[in-house]
Order: sequence, then structure tokens, then C-alpha cells
Amino acid sequence: MLNYGMVGGGPGAFIGDIHRKAIRIDALAKLTAGCFSRNVDKSRKFGKELGIEENCLYSNFEEMAKTEATKKDGISFVVCVTPNVSHFIVCKTFLEQGINVVCDKPLTFTSHQARILADIVKQKNLLFAVTYTYTGYPAIKQMREMVKKGDIGKIRFVNAEYPQDWLAMPLSEDNKLAPWRMDPKVSGITNCLGDIGTHIENLAAFVTGLKIKKISAHLDSLVEGRILDDNAVVNIEYESGAKGLYWSSQIAFGNDNAVRIRIFGEKGGLEWVQENPDHFIFTPCDRPKEIWSRGRDSFENPAQKYSRIPAGHQEGLFEAFANIYKSYIKALTKKNNGEKLSVEDFDFPTVEMGFDGVNYIEKCFESNKNNSAWIKINE
Amino acid sequence: MLNYGMVGGGPGAFIGDIHRKAIRIDALAKLTAGCFSRNVDKSRKFGKELGIEENCLYSNFEEMAKTEATKKDGISFVVCVTPNVSHFIVCKTFLEQGINVVCDKPLTFTSHQARILADIVKQKNLLFAVTYTYTGYPAIKQMREMVKKGDIGKIRFVNAEYPQDWLAMPLSEDNKLAPWRMDPKVSGITNCLGDIGTHIENLAAFVTGLKIKKISAHLDSLVEGRILDDNAVVNIEYESGAKGLYWSSQIAFGNDNAVRIRIFGEKGGLEWVQENPDHFIFTPCDRPKEIWSRGRDSFENPAQKYSRIPAGHQEGLFEAFANIYKSYIKALTKKNNGEKLSVEDFDFPTVEMGFDGVNYIEKCFESNKNNSAWIKINE
Amino acid sequence: MLNYGMVGGGPGAFIGDIHRKAIRIDALAKLTAGCFSRNVDKSRKFGKELGIEENCLYSNFEEMAKTEATKKDGISFVVCVTPNVSHFIVCKTFLEQGINVVCDKPLTFTSHQARILADIVKQKNLLFAVTYTYTGYPAIKQMREMVKKGDIGKIRFVNAEYPQDWLAMPLSEDNKLAPWRMDPKVSGITNCLGDIGTHIENLAAFVTGLKIKKISAHLDSLVEGRILDDNAVVNIEYESGAKGLYWSSQIAFGNDNAVRIRIFGEKGGLEWVQENPDHFIFTPCDRPKEIWSRGRDSFENPAQKYSRIPAGHQEGLFEAFANIYKSYIKALTKKNNGEKLSVEDFDFPTVEMGFDGVNYIEKCFESNKNNSAWIKINE
Amino acid sequence: MLNYGMVGGGPGAFIGDIHRKAIRIDALAKLTAGCFSRNVDKSRKFGKELGIEENCLYSNFEEMAKTEATKKDGISFVVCVTPNVSHFIVCKTFLEQGINVVCDKPLTFTSHQARILADIVKQKNLLFAVTYTYTGYPAIKQMREMVKKGDIGKIRFVNAEYPQDWLAMPLSEDNKLAPWRMDPKVSGITNCLGDIGTHIENLAAFVTGLKIKKISAHLDSLVEGRILDDNAVVNIEYESGAKGLYWSSQIAFGNDNAVRIRIFGEKGGLEWVQENPDHFIFTPCDRPKEIWSRGRDSFENPAQKYSRIPAGHQEGLFEAFANIYKSYIKALTKKNNGEKLSVEDFDFPTVEMGFDGVNYIEKCFESNKNNSAWIKINE
Repeated sequence: MLNYGMVGGGPGAFIGDIHRKAIRIDALAKLTAGCFSRNVDKSRKFGKELGIEENCLYSNFEEMAKTEATKKDGISFVVCVTPNVSHFIVCKTFLEQGINVVCDKPLTFTSHQARILADIVKQKNLLFAVTYTYTGYPAIKQMREMVKKGDIGKIRFVNAEYPQDWLAMPLSEDNKLAPWRMDPKVSGITNCLGDIGTHIENLAAFVTGLKIKKISAHLDSLVEGRILDDNAVVNIEYESGAKGLYWSSQIAFGNDNAVRIRIFGEKGGLEWVQENPDHFIFTPCDRPKEIWSRGRDSFENPAQKYSRIPAGHQEGLFEAFANIYKSYIKALTKKNNGEKLSVEDFDFPTVEMGFDGVNYIEKCFESNKNNSAWIKINE
Repeated sequence: MLNYGMVGGGPGAFIGDIHRKAIRIDALAKLTAGCFSRNVDKSRKFGKELGIEENCLYSNFEEMAKTEATKKDGISFVVCVTPNVSHFIVCKTFLEQGINVVCDKPLTFTSHQARILADIVKQKNLLFAVTYTYTGYPAIKQMREMVKKGDIGKIRFVNAEYPQDWLAMPLSEDNKLAPWRMDPKVSGITNCLGDIGTHIENLAAFVTGLKIKKISAHLDSLVEGRILDDNAVVNIEYESGAKGLYWSSQIAFGNDNAVRIRIFGEKGGLEWVQENPDHFIFTPCDRPKEIWSRGRDSFENPAQKYSRIPAGHQEGLFEAFANIYKSYIKALTKKNNGEKLSVEDFDFPTVEMGFDGVNYIEKCFESNKNNSAWIKINE
Repeated sequence: MLNYGMVGGGPGAFIGDIHRKAIRIDALAKLTAGCFSRNVDKSRKFGKELGIEENCLYSNFEEMAKTEATKKDGISFVVCVTPNVSHFIVCKTFLEQGINVVCDKPLTFTSHQARILADIVKQKNLLFAVTYTYTGYPAIKQMREMVKKGDIGKIRFVNAEYPQDWLAMPLSEDNKLAPWRMDPKVSGITNCLGDIGTHIENLAAFVTGLKIKKISAHLDSLVEGRILDDNAVVNIEYESGAKGLYWSSQIAFGNDNAVRIRIFGEKGGLEWVQENPDHFIFTPCDRPKEIWSRGRDSFENPAQKYSRIPAGHQEGLFEAFANIYKSYIKALTKKNNGEKLSVEDFDFPTVEMGFDGVNYIEKCFESNKNNSAWIKINE
Repeated sequence: MLNYGMVGGGPGAFIGDIHRKAIRIDALAKLTAGCFSRNVDKSRKFGKELGIEENCLYSNFEEMAKTEATKKDGISFVVCVTPNVSHFIVCKTFLEQGINVVCDKPLTFTSHQARILADIVKQKNLLFAVTYTYTGYPAIKQMREMVKKGDIGKIRFVNAEYPQDWLAMPLSEDNKLAPWRMDPKVSGITNCLGDIGTHIENLAAFVTGLKIKKISAHLDSLVEGRILDDNAVVNIEYESGAKGLYWSSQIAFGNDNAVRIRIFGEKGGLEWVQENPDHFIFTPCDRPKEIWSRGRDSFENPAQKYSRIPAGHQEGLFEAFANIYKSYIKALTKKNNGEKLSVEDFDFPTVEMGFDGVNYIEKCFESNKNNSAWIKINE
């Protein structure tokens, strides 16, 4: 079992708790160090409750990085779950100390920052994962296999969407979660696109393997008085010539977290909805459409190996998260053992995908400012 | 019971048969005259089988228009179900003889032609319906009522789509229906957009009452070797400031005729899918989402009056078609009786909606040619 | 086109109107005679509105049967849509005059009566259909084909249900439809079982071809103060050794007319729900489950030939009804032309199925009285 | 954090792994002792991998019970996940040593054994939970609240089912899981009823609070050559006069673990399906049906407090399991602290429910042997 540390994710922090729970499911790593809050007392109290030894509860993340890097049984990786604004500096600090990193998305504020992180990772030969949750679902992994094998032929069109409705009402005093998301200083240049739009950009890339060539973006603030976007439509052209359409919204009444991806190829189609994550639909060009269930024999090993329980007993978000950690920790353990990693070992969203996400946000922002002009993604 | 005639819709013609069957359901009009095919013998033989008297089976539609216009018991209206290319001349001919017209969509090849028809209708005080099928569903009518009453508040965003997959395979010899649809001389400047994209443009307009201000269109031919579009994405800005997104596709494996509309307002949302036409989902901002069934008491009179059978027994496309005819014939009967028509009587897609559809196609075509530039719809 | 007559189905009568509309869709028969109500004036007025000539509007059904039987262009068949209590005498009268009959279900009050009708039909070589609606759906016909071909192997278990909720509230003054249904003199010995339980008995027999050997029935009146049953569970043993479970209910809140049948064989399963009638699910034993759509090529000719429109445009109850009439009228026309009818021509519920339904009701009633004892169906 | 031990659940044991993972999610208890297999070496090796200290890895459960009972920091509770046949002796041994127990279902082979366990629990004032998984879902807890509050009025009918298809094919050599389930010596007198039929008996009791008065059972072995049942239908009469119908099957092609419960009351209905566990449907008698989502504000505190993540991110079986442990451990901690437990604290399936399950199996077995005679449940 590896040791890991956490920065951010203090009392009441929603996402930090999910990371810890997800890691505990498989018990492949143990939380042994932390810096959970800027309030040192709060952080220490919380760390103790989590069973961490006192001398591994740090006042600030710089101290934590330095100390853990030099300890014999120091952490093998750190999980960064701070607000978006500090992802860059936290990740950079640990990477520079030679510590592997798992960071929440979006990776950084600017693509420049993301490039710096990616460069350090490469240069120091470290392992870096970005927790784009939806890539952890076995159904998504099976769909990726089927795309690879050519089951739907060359892809023609991708339609991905992420509608929510939790920001459909104007903000009120008692809506605690929302304010910082609407504050550009904390959230960055976009809200809806950065928070959930990047999820579908990543999910589509992960499943299809398609590279975006150019985009034309429409960011809207549909709730009165809002500064940042709460609805985003992005038209996509891929390098292969295929086309795409990504829609994300936080004002879509009737939707909780209805991530949906539909992929249409020359020989068939695939469809998946996050609110029913254990199933997907495969339509071959010449037979009726099929409903596939996670856990059934039809799933192939690269997807099936993530199933923990039989078909029909649902696995959800925690298990998807746990799968990302499972892949990451397995790869890290292999690397620590001096084994060479194959492409298959990188079965988690990498720092390059993190870069792609931030770059995508920037290019969409730019396109939107320019009357939705088509912008090349790599210029 | 009114008398009606038909131009087009001969043996093997799919859509003409639907019109006749739909009209027969309620038996509010009787087919008494026709010109079903350019092949006069074929047309006469077919007309006799339909029970039409020989002297009411015409060699050409000009003769039919003239003769029926002067007969005492001539037709009250004509149904035009010819290929798109001849809609204009057929409709114009009958209108000029003072005969009311029901025409299939898209109304004409050019908006100029559509404007001419609309002008004659106005000038001669005739009734003209365009058979945009989906407006006939009681669920759609109930949604329109709820929008009107403010149940979802001011509309912010509309997401409408029409995916099919019947043109996903390259054309082969034995695929008889498709060729003319891909021939610009018969189908006009677009295929997917003109054939099904206009349906969602009309459906959204009918339910929401929103007027489009400008559009940015992306027409693609995703099947190799195809000239006309088989996939179309249109970004919309309405006059009210609301935004929209319309996607239609003929290469979307796994979809038969999956028309879907989602409307998001300040106080709630509405969702309807054509493959389950008797139901829709209403999500109020402060309560769980609701599934409404046609035929249940929750439907209000302007929608409920179109129900023929109790909830749970499905009504489908024929009944939706029949509803358009029901409204049209009732209005026509009222007009023939010298009564004044109220706004409620025009509960069918009008010639102005027909114009809007053709204009929409033209503007989308123009935008697409100009690198998807934003184009004002009324310039 | 054949001529037909109708007994019952006067102004306001729900089911008579459905029959007429359904017949009109395909225009294979024309309503030329009728006796729509015991109130002669009402009946005549109504008949005239329907376009029937005055001398074909009869004061009573006996007169109608006699007169039509002797006319040169008299009716080829009569549709009996009177209340259940008079089905027997009406049918018998017409049969004895040599006139073919279509009768609503349940066929008669007693199996003795049903046997008499069946005997006359046989003896006089007439065609008799009972309008068990659900057998008319193309999806049901396709499922029947698949069972026949052995796609699911030998059947092991059938689970059929018909939940409604329209009698879930105690009767009030303004609930007009219900009273007679709860009156044994009009409805017979059962309500829920007779009205909707027989539908699933027939549907299961039609699709599976299984013959019931014995039954054990549980009839309950779950709404206080009710005499007849509003909920019925019947345990089934078929002659083949397979087992079954039929549940019908009128107090099942949340259900409109949710007929559902699930058939489990040695090699696969089938499932269909009336509220989504154009689709069914086929699960082969060794592959993912499949969703089949009416109108798709996967449907075989004996089912496909009933499709009027492409997949994705729903056909509903009217079309199912129309299909029964289509089969019946085609068979009748063939017979009238002196052709020999094959087994395939009898693609509608016959008088023997009508007998089976009434016999099933009687045996269930008897079992229920005897503490749900197992009763042989043929003793 | 409490200490706990485990008996059974060795390498490859499916259910033991689920228990451990589920407990780890919330980290309210730590595995500190175990006896995982009859093979002592295997057990010790496995225990070490789980991080348990060597002196807490026992050769047999008797030794474990005795030793842990006397240790200062011994286990607070033991989890029994052995094959059904040894549940009784294991549970009894630990209870007699004063150690609290969590046991898998079905609790014991005979109701006599279950009664003995229940008596010891009472006498020694211990806490005992039976892991009927489905009671752990927040949606189920919310439904229970709504029943309690009278939202659907007095219950009239319950329809619960549990179809699977994993035993639909005759057993083959490579189907490893199944053999012991079909061996009466290991599985007891029933298979399908005991394995999954008890789940729906418990689920219905948990949600509705109804007590069964009598049952009439139909157990069938529908796959050739099978001794124990693979399909079970049970007709139910509750003490309140309400009726019920429970169906479980292992040969139902197309079903993974499709637990479904429908409850119909005087004022509305409720419906839940395990394959979509975060949602349920509530139909009030006078409004459209509603889809409720776990995590939404509409959930009340006794259910909502079990939500870990927002609506739309699915929680599945692990989380349901974790909820049972959460309630159990919270109650145990409270008791250990000398606090008095309220009725609300017993928010987990108790030993009495375990008894009810075994008794239900016995009575169904008896009824089935007697030609499905009605049997009183408490005689």
C-alpha cells in the first residue's frame, strides 16, 4: 500500500471527501500526510480525525512537499483538491520536489501554467493524473475499446452534453456553493465551460481518441445579473475531418448531472448517459440497437477488470473515481518497482489531457469574444 | 363534410397516403377530386380505386383548379403532396382560383415564392395550412399552453434536435427513396436541413412563440461522396435575447425519428420526444419533475380536445396529422359559414410559418457558405 | 370495399367511435347500416350524420339482421359494440342470418353462450373476430413470429400484467363511466378480470401459443364498498408445463394502460409494454439485449406488412385496431371471392379465443370462490 | 473508530470483499481481526494483506470469539459472511461471548435457529444487523418516510419482484458460482426464494411496515434437471387486509438484478427499481407522476442524511451497503457511550427481520409442498 498526502479538502470540502472515500474503497493507498486548510488549527484537528500522525500535518503545502520528499516513508503522491486558483502553485511545488501528483480539474488557470506542469512531469519522469471523473466508468472504457476496434467505423460526428440546473435560480444568500464559482478571481475566465464543459471535452477525447482542430464557441450568461457563463455551446472540427457539438449548461431545469455522449461512425453508434452509468447503447449499422450492461461477459477485459460487482448492481461516481485511482496507483507501483510502463498502464487522464482542457477553455473564451469565430486549438 | 382534392400522392407515394388516411380518421372531409400522377392513366386508375368519380379525375392540376373552382360542389380545399419542386406552382394555381390549400413542407424552393403564396392567401382571404406534423400532437399543444401561461417563466434556452439514421449508409441501387433527396434540382439547396431541420425550427416556434433574430449554421455532408448536407447544427439567437441550438442529422445511428425539444425558462423546463409522443416532462423550479400523459385531466382544453382515447392508449403520427386537418377543416367550415375566425381557430401551421421555414433554410445556407457567419433572419 | 353495419356505438359511446375511425383508416369497408341506440330517434339522427342512408337505419337489431341478410348489397359483416350483456343475443341473431360478425370483448356473459356462438360460426362457415386490441400491434406479431421460429426456445415462464388506476378513487357522481362496470347485471361476474384481465390472457395466448391447463385466481375488491373485483392475480400452469403469472389492476396509481408482457424461454426473453407499442426488447441468451423498432428491416413480413409508416413515427391504438380489421376484411374478401383461407389468413382473434376468454373468467371466478383452488380450464 | 472482525470472506469470496469495501468508504470501523478461511495458512496470508496484525488472525472462529471478547481493544462487532450453512453457529458463538454481530442473509437455515439468535440478542442486549442490502438505498428510506407520513394513504396492494437471469442456462463446468446454490446441504431448502425472494420480502416490509398474515407459494424448477427452485411466485395477505404479490426468478432473460417494488395506496403510488436506485416515482392521486432524485431537496432528512454526493451523480450498491454499516456503527457507538437508543437509531435490518426472512422461506416451502395452500405466517 502506498502513502499519499492531500492539500485542500478540509472540513466541509465536498470534493476532498470524495477523493478520500474513493481511495479507501480499494485500499491501495493510505492517507499519511496533509495540509487541509489555510487555518492551521482547523487543518490539524481535521487531520487527526482522519488518523494522520501529528508530525505529518503541515502548516503549509511548501513545508509538506519539502519534508515528505526527504522522508524515507514519505508520500508517493499528493492529491491537490484546493480551489482552482491554487492548483498550479501546489502542483508545481510538489512536482519540483519529485513527488507525483493527482490534481482536480480544471488543471490550472492558464494553458501556460499547464504547459509548465507538463514539462516538469516529463523532465522529472513523474506520474500525474487529472481527475476527470467520467473516464473512470467501465462503460466508458468499454466504449473506448469498441471505438479502437472499429466497431462503429470511422467517426463522423460527436454530440456531447452536460446539462445541470443547480444554477438556474438567481443566487441567494443561502446558496453557499455558488458564489466563488461566479467570481472570476477564483474560478477563472469561465464558469460553466470551465467547470463542466471541460468534462465533456475530456470525455469525448478519451472515448473517441479524436483531436480537436478548431472550435467556435458561444458562451452565455442566461441568468440575469451574472458575469460568467452559465451556458456554453461549442461547435467542433476534429483533425480527422469529423465534426462535433458540445453543450454544457447550468440552467437546464430537469437535469441533475446528465452528462451524455453520442458518437456516430460509419458503421454504428454509441450512446452513454451518466445518470445510468452502468449501461450504454450500441447500434450496429445492420442490427437492432443493443443495451450493454457493465459486468456482463460482453465487456472486454480492459473495461471488465474495473467491475467490482455483477451486472445489475449499480456502481456509481465513487467507483468511477476509485477506478482512476486504481489505474494511477497501479502504474505508480509498477514504476516504483522499476518496471517499464506500457501505454495500457496510462489508463487515467494525464497532465497532457489537463493541458488540453485548459487550452480548450482559453480558445473557447477567445472565440466567444470574437463573435464565435473559428479558432485553431493549437495556435 | 367538406369536399377536398389532392395533387400528387399517387400509387406508392408514401406521404399522400398518410394525408388521406389521416383525413379519413375524423371523416370531416371527403376526397372528391384528384390528379395523382403525371401519368394520366395511372392517375385515373388510382383515383377510381379511391372511389372518386371519373369526371373528377383530372389530366393536370391546372384543369383541376379551374374546373373545381367553378363547380357547385367543387372542392373546398386541395392537398398538395407533389415533390418539393412543384409545391409553388401547384399552390399558386389553386389559390388564384380561390381554392384553399394544404401543402406539405417545405412550402417552396425559395422564400420569394413563399412570400408570393402568402400574399395571395392574404389578398384573397383564403385558408392555407402547411403540414408540419409535430404541431399536431396534443402533448405539444399542452406545452404551448404552459409556455403561454408562464409555467416555466421567460424562456432562456431551447435545445431542439432531429436525429435519424436512414441515410447513414452510402446510397445503393436498392435504396429507392434517397436519390431525389440528394438531387439539388428536386430537393433544393439543402437536404437534411430542408427535410428535417425545418421541422424543429417550426416545432420550436410553435411551442415557444419565440421569433428568431439571427442564426449561424453548420451544414455538413458526412457521408463520403454526398453533395447535399446530411447533418446540420444551427446556433440561434431569438429576438427576446434567448438562445437556441438546433441539430438535425440523417447519419445518427440508433435513431429512427427522434425529434426532441427541451425548453428552459426562468421558472422551469419542458421536454418532449417524438418517439414517446403522448408524454412530456415538466420540471417546475421547486418541485420534482413530472411526467404528463395525454388524456389525463392535467391537460387543458386547448390540448385535451384533440385526445380521442384515454391516457395510456397511444396516439401516434396519424392522429397528429389528423389533428392538423381537424383544426384546419373546422376553421374552414366556420369561415364558409360566414363566422369570424379568432386567433384560437388558427391552430395549425400557417402559410407564414411555411414562409419562415423556407427563409430559415435560405439564411442557414447563406451562413454556412460564409464560414457560419451570423446572419439576420429578416434581412 | 365491403359494406358493414354496426349495432351499438351511438352518440357518446367511446368504443364504437374507435371501431369506426379504425375502419376508416384503411377504407376497406364502408358503414352502410346501423342500429346505434335503443332510442330510435337518436339512432337515426346519429346514423344520418354518419352518412348512412335512411332506409338502412333500423329500429332494432333483429330487423336489421333480417333485412340486410336479404339485400343484394347488404352488409358483409356487422360490428357489435353494445354493452357486454347483449353481445350474445346480437351476435347470435346476425350469425343465424348468415352475417359475419366482429364483436367487442368479453365475447359473452357465459362460456355456454360463447360455445353456442362458436358452434354457429363453424356450422355456417362464417368469419367471426373478437377485438382483443393488443393482438393488432406489429410488435406483438413480430414477437409471435420469433416465438414460432424458436428464437427464445421452449417457453418456461410468462409474466403478463395490466395495471390501470382509473378506478383507484371511490366512485363519485361525476364519474360517469364506472357505475355499470361495477354492476354485475351489466358487467357480469367480474370487473377487473373481465375488462382487462382477459386482455392479457388473450395477448399471452396469441404471442406464445401456449394453452392454459389450470389456474388459481385471487380476485380482490380493494376499494372500500366495491362489490366486483378491482385487482386480480392469477397463477397459471400451461399444458406444456410452463408457468405463468397474470396481474390486472384498476387501482394501480401511476399507470394509465400499462399492459406489459414478459416471456422467458430456454434461449432468450421478450418484453413489450403497450405504452411504448412500437418497440419490444429481445434478449438472446448469449448477447446483449436488443431494442427492436416497428418499421425496421429486422421485422419480418407477417409483422412488417402491418406497418404503415417508417420506424420512429409511432403507430398507436387506432392502428392496432385497424390491423385487426385489415386482417379480418382481407380474409372475408378472400372468402367472398371463393378462395380457400389458409391458417395465416386467420390473423385476428377468433370466436374460439373469445370463448377462451369467457371460460377463463368463469374458471377464475370459481377458483376465487374456492379459496383460490387450482381449477382445470377445460372441465 | 470501532474495531471489527470478519469470519469468512477469504480470497475470491465475492460478498466479503463488498462488506470490507463498503465499511472502508466511511471509515467508521477498522478491520482488526479475522478468520477468513478454513484453510489456516490461506486465511493468515490473506489477513496480513489486509493489514491485520498476526496475533489477530485466528485458526477458527471459536478461538477468535473467545480471545477478542477478553481483549481490551477487541472487536466491537463481527461480520459473518460464511456460506449460509454456518451462519447460525458463527453468530451464536460470538453473541454468547457478548460480541455484536452483522450477518449476511438469509440469517440461518431454520427459523428455530433464527429465534435462538434473536433471543440471545435480546437477553444480552446486543446489536445485530442482517445485511439486506436494498434497505440501504436513500430512495428506499425516502419512500418509507412517505408511507409513514401517509402520502399514499392506507396501502392496498404491493407488487414486488426480483428477476435475474444468471441461472437461466443449465449449469456447466465453468459456471463456478452456481453449484453450491443448487445444493440443498449448503443453500437450504430453497434457492431462488431463499437467495433473492427474501430480499423482496424484507424490502417490502421495510418500506411499507406491513406485516404478512398468510402466504400461498409456488416454487418452480424451470430449468431441466434442477432440484431447487429457480422461480418463485408468492401471493400475500397482510394483517391490515392489504394484498401482495412477490415474484423472484433466476431464469428471466434480460434481467441483471432488476429488483422492483410498486406500492399502491388509497392516495397514491410509489415505484422503485434497483437498476436505477437513485430515483423513484411518486404518483399522487390528483397530480401527474413525479420522478424524485436522491440528493434533491425533496428528500427529507431521514433519507437525505445518507446522501454523500449531489443528485445526478449515482450512488450504487457499495453506498447502500455502507449506509447499513453507517446506521449500525452509529447506533453501536451510541450504545457503547451509554446513550439510550431511540427507534430511529435502529435504521438497519434487525435480527427480527432476519427471523422473518427465514420463517417466510419455511412457510413458503410448506405451502408449496401442500399444493400452494394458504399458510399463516405465525403458526
